[in-house]
Amino acid sequence: MIRVGIVGGTGYTGVELLRLLATHPQAEVVAITSRSEAGMSVAELFPNLRGCYDELRYSEPDVEVLSQCYVVFFATPHGVAMAMMPELVARGVRVIDLSADFRIKNTELWAEWYGMPHSCPDIVQQAVYGLPEINRDTIANAQVVAAPGCYPTAVQLGFMPLLRHGLINPSRLIANAASGVSGAGRQGKIDNLFAEVGDSFKAYGVPGHRHLPEIEQGLARMTSGNVNLTFVPHLLPMIRGIHATLYAELNVGEYDLQGLFEDTYRDEAFVDVMPAGSHPQTRSVKGANMCRIAVHRPQGRDTVVVLSVIDNLVKGASGQAMQIMNIMFGFDEREGLQGLGLIP
Amino acid sequence: MIRVGIVGGTGYTGVELLRLLATHPQAEVVAITSRSEAGMSVAELFPNLRGCYDELRYSEPDVEVLSQCYVVFFATPHGVAMAMMPELVARGVRVIDLSADFRIKNTELWAEWYGMPHSCPDIVQQAVYGLPEINRDTIANAQVVAAPGCYPTAVQLGFMPLLRHGLINPSRLIANAASGVSGAGRQGKIDNLFAEVGDSFKAYGVPGHRHLPEIEQGLARMTSGNVNLTFVPHLLPMIRGIHATLYAELNVGEYDLQGLFEDTYRDEAFVDVMPAGSHPQTRSVKGANMCRIAVHRPQGRDTVVVLSVIDNLVKGASGQAMQIMNIMFGFDEREGLQGLGLIP
Amino acid sequence: MIRVGIVGGTGYTGVELLRLLATHPQAEVVAITSRSEAGMSVAELFPNLRGCYDELRYSEPDVEVLSQCYVVFFATPHGVAMAMMPELVARGVRVIDLSADFRIKNTELWAEWYGMPHSCPDIVQQAVYGLPEINRDTIANAQVVAAPGCYPTAVQLGFMPLLRHGLINPSRLIANAASGVSGAGRQGKIDNLFAEVGDSFKAYGVPGHRHLPEIEQGLARMTSGNVNLTFVPHLLPMIRGIHATLYAELNVGEYDLQGLFEDTYRDEAFVDVMPAGSHPQTRSVKGANMCRIAVHRPQGRDTVVVLSVIDNLVKGASGQAMQIMNIMFGFDEREGLQGLGLIP
Amino acid sequence: MIRVGIVGGTGYTGVELLRLLATHPQAEVVAITSRSEAGMSVAELFPNLRGCYDELRYSEPDVEVLSQCYVVFFATPHGVAMAMMPELVARGVRVIDLSADFRIKNTELWAEWYGMPHSCPDIVQQAVYGLPEINRDTIANAQVVAAPGCYPTAVQLGFMPLLRHGLINPSRLIANAASGVSGAGRQGKIDNLFAEVGDSFKAYGVPGHRHLPEIEQGLARMTSGNVNLTFVPHLLPMIRGIHATLYAELNVGEYDLQGLFEDTYRDEAFVDVMPAGSHPQTRSVKGANMCRIAVHRPQGRDTVVVLSVIDNLVKGASGQAMQIMNIMFGFDEREGLQGLGLIP
Repeated sequence: MIRVGIVGGTGYTGVELLRLLATHPQAEVVAITSRSEAGMSVAELFPNLRGCYDELRYSEPDVEVLSQCYVVFFATPHGVAMAMMPELVARGVRVIDLSADFRIKNTELWAEWYGMPHSCPDIVQQAVYGLPEINRDTIANAQVVAAPGCYPTAVQLGFMPLLRHGLINPSRLIANAASGVSGAGRQGKIDNLFAEVGDSFKAYGVPGHRHLPEIEQGLARMTSGNVNLTFVPHLLPMIRGIHATLYAELNVGEYDLQGLFEDTYRDEAFVDVMPAGSHPQTRSVKGANMCRIAVHRPQGRDTVVVLSVIDNLVKGASGQAMQIMNIMFGFDEREGLQGLGLIP
Repeated sequence: MIRVGIVGGTGYTGVELLRLLATHPQAEVVAITSRSEAGMSVAELFPNLRGCYDELRYSEPDVEVLSQCYVVFFATPHGVAMAMMPELVARGVRVIDLSADFRIKNTELWAEWYGMPHSCPDIVQQAVYGLPEINRDTIANAQVVAAPGCYPTAVQLGFMPLLRHGLINPSRLIANAASGVSGAGRQGKIDNLFAEVGDSFKAYGVPGHRHLPEIEQGLARMTSGNVNLTFVPHLLPMIRGIHATLYAELNVGEYDLQGLFEDTYRDEAFVDVMPAGSHPQTRSVKGANMCRIAVHRPQGRDTVVVLSVIDNLVKGASGQAMQIMNIMFGFDEREGLQGLGLIP
Repeated sequence: MIRVGIVGGTGYTGVELLRLLATHPQAEVVAITSRSEAGMSVAELFPNLRGCYDELRYSEPDVEVLSQCYVVFFATPHGVAMAMMPELVARGVRVIDLSADFRIKNTELWAEWYGMPHSCPDIVQQAVYGLPEINRDTIANAQVVAAPGCYPTAVQLGFMPLLRHGLINPSRLIANAASGVSGAGRQGKIDNLFAEVGDSFKAYGVPGHRHLPEIEQGLARMTSGNVNLTFVPHLLPMIRGIHATLYAELNVGEYDLQGLFEDTYRDEAFVDVMPAGSHPQTRSVKGANMCRIAVHRPQGRDTVVVLSVIDNLVKGASGQAMQIMNIMFGFDEREGLQGLGLIP
Repeated sequence: MIRVGIVGGTGYTGVELLRLLATHPQAEVVAITSRSEAGMSVAELFPNLRGCYDELRYSEPDVEVLSQCYVVFFATPHGVAMAMMPELVARGVRVIDLSADFRIKNTELWAEWYGMPHSCPDIVQQAVYGLPEINRDTIANAQVVAAPGCYPTAVQLGFMPLLRHGLINPSRLIANAASGVSGAGRQGKIDNLFAEVGDSFKAYGVPGHRHLPEIEQGLARMTSGNVNLTFVPHLLPMIRGIHATLYAELNVGEYDLQGLFEDTYRDEAFVDVMPAGSHPQTRSVKGANMCRIAVHRPQGRDTVVVLSVIDNLVKGASGQAMQIMNIMFGFDEREGLQGLGLIP
């Protein structure tokens, strides 16, 4: 049984971590912090947790307490994890950061997109980018793991087989993606009111979204070519789920794309290549730590279309973070993550 | 490990049974029937089940096969279970029927509401009404259990403490209830299209809904008075969840209603009495086998208001059926049912 | 052509007033105020207005400017209208207040529910409660009209025929109502985020909601008996629409309730009594200034059930306000209000 | 006042035609047909029409009756209009067909995509493709007009300025589009149930959707180059609205794309080019005959992104059909079409 701490547990990735950890047989949450809600029971804020976490209360963040944990999750806005990280690292705590602070190796690029200088660029260099399907071995031994963003998870898993095998032109990639509103977080903003985003659909961030540099960095590792991605996110009138529709120019004639994807992910517990001709629905992964993928070549032309779905809060955040924890601590990678998607 | 059969597994209670049974350590689904989909893989029809039930296919209903199961669930429209029941009972199979066939003891009343004569009234008499919080002991030894309807579960658990203690007038009860659309089943009806029920709300069945006699029968067992219920169901623009708002005339002055409810359900794993002043949300039980209840006495007047929420597919159907199975087979009643509600 | 001013036009009732006034042939919006958005074009904030209000910008509230209008609408939170009202009244401007400031005659009761003393109780006394189906004649000559709340509109129109004819017991009334989220206004509150209220349903304000005293005051005018209402509002996962389900004890035997309702509302343009046995859907009035009503007597018992639906932003707010304006200025009451509900 | 007939008025485009025609001062619906609902009042099927069409009933289709109309709309599945068209054309009736029968000039291509031979290829040749922004003049004098499909309207209006000016590579176009569920029609299909498509998102028809040849035909008219489109439609958990996200390779360096779009549509009443940097929401056109467009060049790279939104039932179907009628009969093109979108 490992002792787990969570920093910033009042948001949606926080409550989802609690939901998932509740069923993990080898982990116990011993501390959860929130400056604004210190003293409140987590079950009061999130009644779905009643009966399971009746004793757990938010506390002020305290390095002493956190450093007694085997692992600390950061479920915070960007900027928070990097402020506390040096102290935790110095005390030997292992950290899984769900925020963006340690995802981008180029800290100048990071500073440009996140609007603040990076306070510990050295730790960025030692941090491991936590996409298990790519970095499983380095995750196992890492002290600091940066859990990938939600869009980046769906997009990278979709492009990876094609880029690694050099089948597509990396300089002309398109990722058209759509997310449920929970991805926008749990803050009182007019833009995310039910009456604003319900029964409607829109693109956002077309001039530039913070996940663009993260995705381009990840894709660049899969190819020797020059990566150039057009990334357009959209906001869906639903709570959970990301759907990425990926487009690329194929530079091969006939090719068994279906076989390529199946071979690539055959041994992965949390990537499911659907049968040829499929259209994965986000609901098939609602609440589940799973990425479902289908690959198409419409009309037999030279544009490949990959469809990739995840639950943004699970495989796109808290589930993936728990998968990372399982790898770091030598547990079965599927421990606590075998819940199925909710249909209907 | 007990062998489980499911008759009629192409509807929403069927797929939910499969989702829940997938995590049950002592039960294995060995047969699932569907005339219309015989031969199809369950994971093809419901992709959330992929990776978990890859070998399981729908088959034609066959009493030989079903009678080799320790327990058979009926997840069928009314009229189906009663047709097969005599043969199964004769062979000693234990049966949990999620349909309405064995819920109402008065088979003439049943025939009136369901528009067909009952074909095995004798088995109705021996069948146990499967609300564990009322009939736990008789369920344990029953051969045939009628799992309660979704509305009846939410309404009976809400009224029970008040009626049992004689605190309300049983002849003037009101149950104003609302259900997600999954309660209407998985059939191709215009009335249940997204474009018909989305972004709208309505009452239905006001002149008379089939759950009325079932609820009145259940409430009558809790009181010596004459029960008279006005029951108005409504259709919500959401998938899962039932919310019952119950009204009754109190016949006591000051009274610790909160204490009464807490005492009544203190030992129940699947009924959660919320703190005084609470308003339970259906999402707090989404996907979970839980009934959350709050009791109010607005303005200190003499009308009590009880709020009761369940997931119609879990505590209102398949989860409760699995709870019944746990009781029948002497398993821990919570086995396989500890998943938490999905927030957000 | 009358000159119209709007105070507080950045909320949902404000934009709905603009949408409706855009099609009114005899009214022109010449001023719209907002402290927070002064200087911004209304069409920038609400792009549905593009092409129609391209010149109109929010301005700081200015009594000089407003007093040059024939009529000023207040689409503000409570407390704002009463602060400006004396000056406007003194200058002879006619005012339609969509807020709660002038609805309740008993200003001590008002102060208790709204948590502040009332600053101009004398104007409250002269103000007319603007439910046209009850007060049409006094509205015509009023200087200050308090447009009714959304729930109070749906509930009063539903109970009125029964109370006026003494057919029900006024001391035991129940109004179970549900509203779309737009009723909660356009403020950045966590409670109204899509990820909080989507795909869920709950009651709220059961211990006491501010519309209770307003409704009880209105119902009391319809009967000589002592009015006692239990009012339970609920929050629907949809944007627009209110559905009220009303319950009362009938004190008559056989009675032509359908005929009573049809007779009562025969000459009303904006109350539509549905055929016997109907279940009005909120979508049938989405965007329309209409109240649709059905009356039921389930099982022929002695509880009457009335179903009443409106669009909370139209007949429940801005449409009714424009109907009031039409009456005040002698226009055809239906002017600008003939748009039909949006199905699907 | 022109006499209008509608064939097939029980679907969503039918009821939307009735909603819009109700406010048209120069048109009167005198006949509406439906084999399945003959004899039923339209207001019984669609209660939003109550009070407006109380006398109008569905009738069996009858060429005699229809030929007494000035104009007949077909709001039918494909295959119906072409069966009746020769007789109506012979009698001189003008026809606006909302179905796909007369959209594609190459009738062999049509037969391939629609799975049946075309029964009157000669009328196809004389029919005018009814996109007013392209074919206004020929529409004015046409006898038969094929109203464009919903996706084709959004996609063609978005690409037109770029293709006409030769700014993009026509052989590598991508249209990623998403539609509300009303686009799937009003038929009792499991796939379109609320419990199937609610709270979820998916692509569909990736291997080939029937709107692909229609769009490619339209785009080909705008350029001399070889048109090649990858078209991926998606299904949104909402009722109304289409959002198209268009991608193309620019073959120019710096260019005033914003100015190009504004110039192109300056005189169009129903195409609104948003300010630079905008992200149009589908709700801004809900219920309105409007196409809102924004053009972006993310990161200043060489991929242009166009965002184009319509209400699939209005500018994508019935509103556009009424716009066509206005052009054909010399009415103001905006007559009856000035309703604003519903926000919120």
